Amino acid sequence: MRKIEKIVLPRLVFIGSGNLATQLALTFSEKQYTVLQVYSRTKESAIALSGKIGCAFTTNIGELNTEADIYICALKDSVLQEVLEQVDFRGKLVVHTAGSVPMNMLSTYTPNYGVFYPLQTFSKNKRVDFSKIPVFVEANNPENLSILKSLAESVSNVVYEADTEKREKLHLAAVFACNFTNHLYAIAAKIIGENGDFPMDVLLPLIDETAEKVHTLSPVEAQTGPAVRYDKNVIDRHLEMLSWDKDAQRIYELMSRDIYRYSADI
Amino acid sequence: MRKIEKIVLPRLVFIGSGNLATQLALTFSEKQYTVLQVYSRTKESAIALSGKIGCAFTTNIGELNTEADIYICALKDSVLQEVLEQVDFRGKLVVHTAGSVPMNMLSTYTPNYGVFYPLQTFSKNKRVDFSKIPVFVEANNPENLSILKSLAESVSNVVYEADTEKREKLHLAAVFACNFTNHLYAIAAKIIGENGDFPMDVLLPLIDETAEKVHTLSPVEAQTGPAVRYDKNVIDRHLEMLSWDKDAQRIYELMSRDIYRYSADI
Repeated sequence: MRKIEKIVLPRLVFIGSGNLATQLALTFSEKQYTVLQVYSRTKESAIALSGKIGCAFTTNIGELNTEADIYICALKDSVLQEVLEQVDFRGKLVVHTAGSVPMNMLSTYTPNYGVFYPLQTFSKNKRVDFSKIPVFVEANNPENLSILKSLAESVSNVVYEADTEKREKLHLAAVFACNFTNHLYAIAAKIIGENGDFPMDVLLPLIDETAEKVHTLSPVEAQTGPAVRYDKNVIDRHLEMLSWDKDAQRIYELMSRDIYRYSADI
Repeated sequence: MRKIEKIVLPRLVFIGSGNLATQLALTFSEKQYTVLQVYSRTKESAIALSGKIGCAFTTNIGELNTEADIYICALKDSVLQEVLEQVDFRGKLVVHTAGSVPMNMLSTYTPNYGVFYPLQTFSKNKRVDFSKIPVFVEANNPENLSILKSLAESVSNVVYEADTEKREKLHLAAVFACNFTNHLYAIAAKIIGENGDFPMDVLLPLIDETAEKVHTLSPVEAQTGPAVRYDKNVIDRHLEMLSWDKDAQRIYELMSRDIYRYSADI
C-alpha cells in the first residue's frame, strides 16, 4: 500500500490589509492555506479583508495571533519598522513584501526571515491571475528559502530567487514600467481631454497594442514615432503645443532625445 | 419586388507600403474593396504588399493608376510632399493618414481631399483588429467627409470627425501613450537586464496590468508607487541607483515630481 503523506500547509497571519495584502490573502485562502488572522490599524480595512476570507482580525498589534507558521508583513515601507518593533514573533518565520526594503532589516525581530516580492501592481477590488505573476523570494537560510519557494510555487508558476540588490533593481524597473507609464497615460488623457474633445477611451487600443508589442519584440525594436527618426519638424511643433505645461514639455524633450539615443545604439 | 441596390465600393490606390499602408490595404482588401495598385519607392516592399493582396504594384510614380476613386497616401511626413508633386490626380479624392500633417497641404494637388487617421501603432507583420481602432476623418467638403466616414465605418466601429488641430493633439497624446511608454519599457528592460539578471518577460504581467487598469480607472486614480506619496527615501535611493545613466535619472526625477503634482490636484 502506498503511503499517503498529508502535506501540512503553513498557517499564515497577514500584517497589513492594503492592495497587496488583500490579493495575497485571497489567493492563499483559495489555495487552502489557513489564514489565522489579519492585522490592520484601520478597522474598516481589517473587517473588509477578514470578512472576505472568513478569518479573525485585530487592530491591536498586541493581540497578534502567536500560532502562525509564517507572518506576512505587507505594510507601507514607512510603517513597517514601527509595527514590527511591537511584536514578539517567538522565532517564527517573518517575511516582508517590499521591493526596496533590505531583507536584513527583519533580523532584529526574528532569527527566521525572508522576502516574498510579487512583481505586480495590485488593486483591492480587482482580482489578478496570481499564477502568472513573477514572485521573487529571498531568505536568511536554505531551510527558510525552501519554505518560501514552496509557498510561492503554490500560487505562481514564475518563481525566482532574488537577493536584496536584485530586488531593488526589479522595483526600480517596475517604477518605470508601471508608475511612470501610467503617468504618461495621464498626460495623454489630459492632452486629448482638454475642451472635452475626446474621451480617454480612444487611447485604449493604442495603449493595449503598445503593451502587447513587447511580448514579441524588444522595446527598442518595437519603437516607432517621430523621435526614432528625430523628425525635428514634428518634435518642435509638439514642444510648442506643450507650452502650457512646462513639465510635460521637459518630459517630451528628454524622452525624445533618449529614444533617439537608444535607437542609434542598435 | 424589392429593388436591390448594388453598393459600388470605391476603388483604392495605396501610395506607400509601410506598416500602416500594409495593415490598411490588407483590411480594405478583406472587406471586398478593390485595391488597384500599390506604389512604393522600395521594390521589395511594393512586391511584398501587392503580393499579399493580389494587386498590381509600381515603383515608378509616373505609372500610378489613374482609375482609382480614392488615393490613400500612407507615407512618411518627410516624403509626402515630394511624392504628391509628381502626380496628376485628375481631381480625384486624395487622403493622407498622418497625425501631424495639416489637411490643407493636400489642396495644392487636388480639389478633393481629406484625412484618414487611425490612432494605433502598426507593425508590418502583426495583424490588428481594425474594428476597434478609432479612426479620425476630416475632409474639405461634406460630400468627401461622407465618403471618408463610410470608408472608415466599413472597417472600424469607432469613427470620429477631427479637424487638423484636434488631430494634432491626438497625435501628441499618442506619442506619450505609445512611443514614450515603449521607451519606459526599454529603460526598465535595461535596468533588470544588466548582468543578465532577469529577462524582459518578468515585466510583462506588470506592463499588461498597468495598461488594463486604465480601462476601468482614470490614470490618476490608478496611480501607485513611491512618487504618489513622495516617499523620499525610496526616490533618493532610486536616483542613486541610476547614477550610471544621467538621462534615466532626469526622467525619474521629472516623472516623480509630476506624478506627485497630479495626485495633489485630485
